[in-house]
Amino acid sequence: MNYALVLIDIQKGLDELHFYGGVRNNLTAESNCSLLLKYFRDHDLHRVFIQHDSINPESPLHPSKKGHEIKEEVKPTVNEEVFHKSVNSAFIGTQLEHWLHQHATDVVVMVGLTTEHCISTSVRMSANLGFQTILIEDATAAFQKVLPDGQVVDAEMVHQVELANLRDEFAEIITSHALVKRIKSNI
Amino acid sequence: MNYALVLIDIQKGLDELHFYGGVRNNLTAESNCSLLLKYFRDHDLHRVFIQHDSINPESPLHPSKKGHEIKEEVKPTVNEEVFHKSVNSAFIGTQLEHWLHQHATDVVVMVGLTTEHCISTSVRMSANLGFQTILIEDATAAFQKVLPDGQVVDAEMVHQVELANLRDEFAEIITSHALVKRIKSNI
Repeated sequence: MNYALVLIDIQKGLDELHFYGGVRNNLTAESNCSLLLKYFRDHDLHRVFIQHDSINPESPLHPSKKGHEIKEEVKPTVNEEVFHKSVNSAFIGTQLEHWLHQHATDVVVMVGLTTEHCISTSVRMSANLGFQTILIEDATAAFQKVLPDGQVVDAEMVHQVELANLRDEFAEIITSHALVKRIKSNI
Repeated sequence: MNYALVLIDIQKGLDELHFYGGVRNNLTAESNCSLLLKYFRDHDLHRVFIQHDSINPESPLHPSKKGHEIKEEVKPTVNEEVFHKSVNSAFIGTQLEHWLHQHATDVVVMVGLTTEHCISTSVRMSANLGFQTILIEDATAAFQKVLPDGQVVDAEMVHQVELANLRDEFAEIITSHALVKRIKSNI
């Protein structure tokens, strides 16, 4: 099986928590992304980076901001492909679909930020475009939401509900550890 | 402003609750869809139907099943357009994007089933394709989910979390009543 790791929006600006709703879950998402990236590099497996170029000048992900940079722990090398997007889906306005076909991808593995926005949107579209898709649950993270009636839904619940909404319908949802184990068994 | 009402997957098979997770919220979603459809018909506003043709022979929405039919309360007339899809997004494998541009749509209004699957996926893609998008919160509904640890997230919570994940980032989320009021004031 030909796996491709798609690393989405792992950018410094996401650390400006107040801009994104205050509280985030799964603070080890980036280190898990980094471990997977190392595994894919060490075994010469396909990987591709998606970088968000916000069109909102106030956003920490606007290209004029320091926060636009990809985080150090998953910094692409000069030989690695980076696609730039300005909406949530990693497939809209990019060559990602073409790149995945060009690299004969059997399984798309998605990691990055955030579970409920760009990850969910990209996972849904990956599946709907016909790719077998895996989402790594410990390599993504969500922000808390406040409902119109004032109720706070904590970040872990947002994460779990969005994973539940994606599970089986769009993607298989497994841990980093389970993915590496699966690749090692060559299935 | 030129509004287009997109009615997604309002099909009889969705009543087979056991197939979709057992418990659903917002049992008046269909009657609210029906009221909005009547308003759009009476005022000669654009509307289009999306019908899911499942490729899973076990699905109540497989074209061989009675459940594939659009529900009576929102049955399209012979002069109304129906696009068929076999994935979640109303835009993939259909002419919906072209149709919306052809009808000079300023605002895409989405209603139908279910909040967390086809509605969320279609709303996300509508926004990412550049359409101003409105989701009618009382004209869609969700199913409960069971998390891997056995915890049941009730259907209303699934609905509210998915709406929170879509709100502002992808769509404005308002009631049927608020939509009609807005169209009447011609904004």
